[in-house]
Amino acid sequence: MSTPVNVAVTGAAGQITYALLFRIAAGDFLGPDQPINLHLLEIPEALDSLRGVVMELEDCAFPLLRSVVATSDPRVAFAGADYAFLVGARPRGPGMERKDLLQINAGIFAVQGQALGEVAKPGVKALVVGNPANTNALIALHNARSLEPCNFSAMTRLDHSRAVSLLAQHCGARVDEVRRVAIWGNHSTTQYPDLHHAEVRGRQALELVAPEWYEEDYIPTVQQRGAAVIQARGKSSAASAANAAISHLRDWVYGTPQDDWTSAALPGAGAYGIAPDIFYSYPVASAGGAWRIVEGLDIDEFSRERMRITERELLEERDTVRALLPD
Amino acid sequence: MSTPVNVAVTGAAGQITYALLFRIAAGDFLGPDQPINLHLLEIPEALDSLRGVVMELEDCAFPLLRSVVATSDPRVAFAGADYAFLVGARPRGPGMERKDLLQINAGIFAVQGQALGEVAKPGVKALVVGNPANTNALIALHNARSLEPCNFSAMTRLDHSRAVSLLAQHCGARVDEVRRVAIWGNHSTTQYPDLHHAEVRGRQALELVAPEWYEEDYIPTVQQRGAAVIQARGKSSAASAANAAISHLRDWVYGTPQDDWTSAALPGAGAYGIAPDIFYSYPVASAGGAWRIVEGLDIDEFSRERMRITERELLEERDTVRALLPD
Repeated sequence: MSTPVNVAVTGAAGQITYALLFRIAAGDFLGPDQPINLHLLEIPEALDSLRGVVMELEDCAFPLLRSVVATSDPRVAFAGADYAFLVGARPRGPGMERKDLLQINAGIFAVQGQALGEVAKPGVKALVVGNPANTNALIALHNARSLEPCNFSAMTRLDHSRAVSLLAQHCGARVDEVRRVAIWGNHSTTQYPDLHHAEVRGRQALELVAPEWYEEDYIPTVQQRGAAVIQARGKSSAASAANAAISHLRDWVYGTPQDDWTSAALPGAGAYGIAPDIFYSYPVASAGGAWRIVEGLDIDEFSRERMRITERELLEERDTVRALLPD
Repeated sequence: MSTPVNVAVTGAAGQITYALLFRIAAGDFLGPDQPINLHLLEIPEALDSLRGVVMELEDCAFPLLRSVVATSDPRVAFAGADYAFLVGARPRGPGMERKDLLQINAGIFAVQGQALGEVAKPGVKALVVGNPANTNALIALHNARSLEPCNFSAMTRLDHSRAVSLLAQHCGARVDEVRRVAIWGNHSTTQYPDLHHAEVRGRQALELVAPEWYEEDYIPTVQQRGAAVIQARGKSSAASAANAAISHLRDWVYGTPQDDWTSAALPGAGAYGIAPDIFYSYPVASAGGAWRIVEGLDIDEFSRERMRITERELLEERDTVRALLPD
């Protein structure tokens, strides 16, 4: 058995984390030979309920779970962190403007970014799940003095999996017969699920589906899937978000398959003519523990327009929280 | 990849199953090479919310998950079932007597037992998780005409893991350094967590702990752990129960380690002088897909008395539901 690694998880008493923690402790993230210390962060008001979650973790007698720390102090939670799942975020309350939501969360992620920069391992991999994820990641990065863009990414993997699954279902294929779907832009309803490069059983996806279905059915269904789940389940996606978070970080660590890619949001340094600094979702591959944007894909006018719409939203979000972006 | 197996899960829109289904679909139960069809059973009133869970399962794009059926008909849910997680049960409502609770659940498990006997695979492995689990399993077995006792077991694995974890914690050991803890009897507060045969790092557990701690602290803490979790979390154990269910069925299928055992409730055919037909938790080992009670352990007076108390409760439960036990 190797040395334990430190996995920090925020929003630790929430619904997504409840679906996430037990899978991490069972080995679903780092495999059956990697011992883990869990560092759980919550706001002080939620520490009591978090104590119940910790009791349940103990009750599983997970052989890989070496220790659990539950705290409301980010500097304790992120101390020596190898991996950080930044799940906790303030949800939109009644009467709250989008702008207020952005700023409240920016405040949270500024503090967490600072703490990460001060106490996490220099090679920490931090995944932002809490919404608005892309802009929260931007804030965290800018406040994490000693860390680099390569330490952060924001999650569009749930959108990616939804896009894969819906295409497979429509084509009567299995999900593992679908490749090269891409999510561009923001993890919001402006995201652009792109099938121009996608393949189903080795054939071009757009040759298999009607253009009207793609444009009028598929794209809005993927964009609005979150709301549809809430409508059906009465609660927002939790277990599927947790699964996406594990898949994202696992791929980041262990790499993506040679002949496929996934989607993740990160600063693109100008790739595809997108503003270089915002966390924007691209098709990405991973090798050696680093994300690499898949470059050189042909982008037609249809795609370009949709990529710009979601870029515009991200630029507006950035401008709303600019006060919290130190130079 | 092998042929998909059919995994039936009842109470499919509940909290325990929400923690269970995504782990089964991710391969935590049968490994990364075994495709799975999920057959989900719920009462008609919960089918809408179950639809939301099915959407989330789709949104994970699990390569192993070949199909999902959601139904309120047990004969559809159990058709061709290789494995059945019987999780759904009516919880105790306000003003409900224990007797009422037993009888309502007996009615549910009589119907499910019948359906299992008619449409499941002859080798089906059915695990009863829904409470009162031991007596629900008894009802299901007696109503499953074509099935045998070897097709059923009831879950005390959560109690077992709690007992292992608490002992490890007290001794400053890791959970994988603890062996041969046993849970005897009913999955209720009369259960008897037995350390007389337990070892910690190869040493007798009872030589490492004070007798008063064992009798006055350890035993009641394990017995009442469920209530303590509810107290802390505000909800009953879900993810830890799901984890125990996976561990139980995985051990049933793949076997237990040579030098250790686990605990499960099954009809003991007279082992240890316990009534032969009730589902009573024993230390059990598994090989070749079959549970075997670990026989020949020395039982002292202290243990014997506690084993009788929990047996008596199970006999009373059986008598309460006798009308639903066909000869």
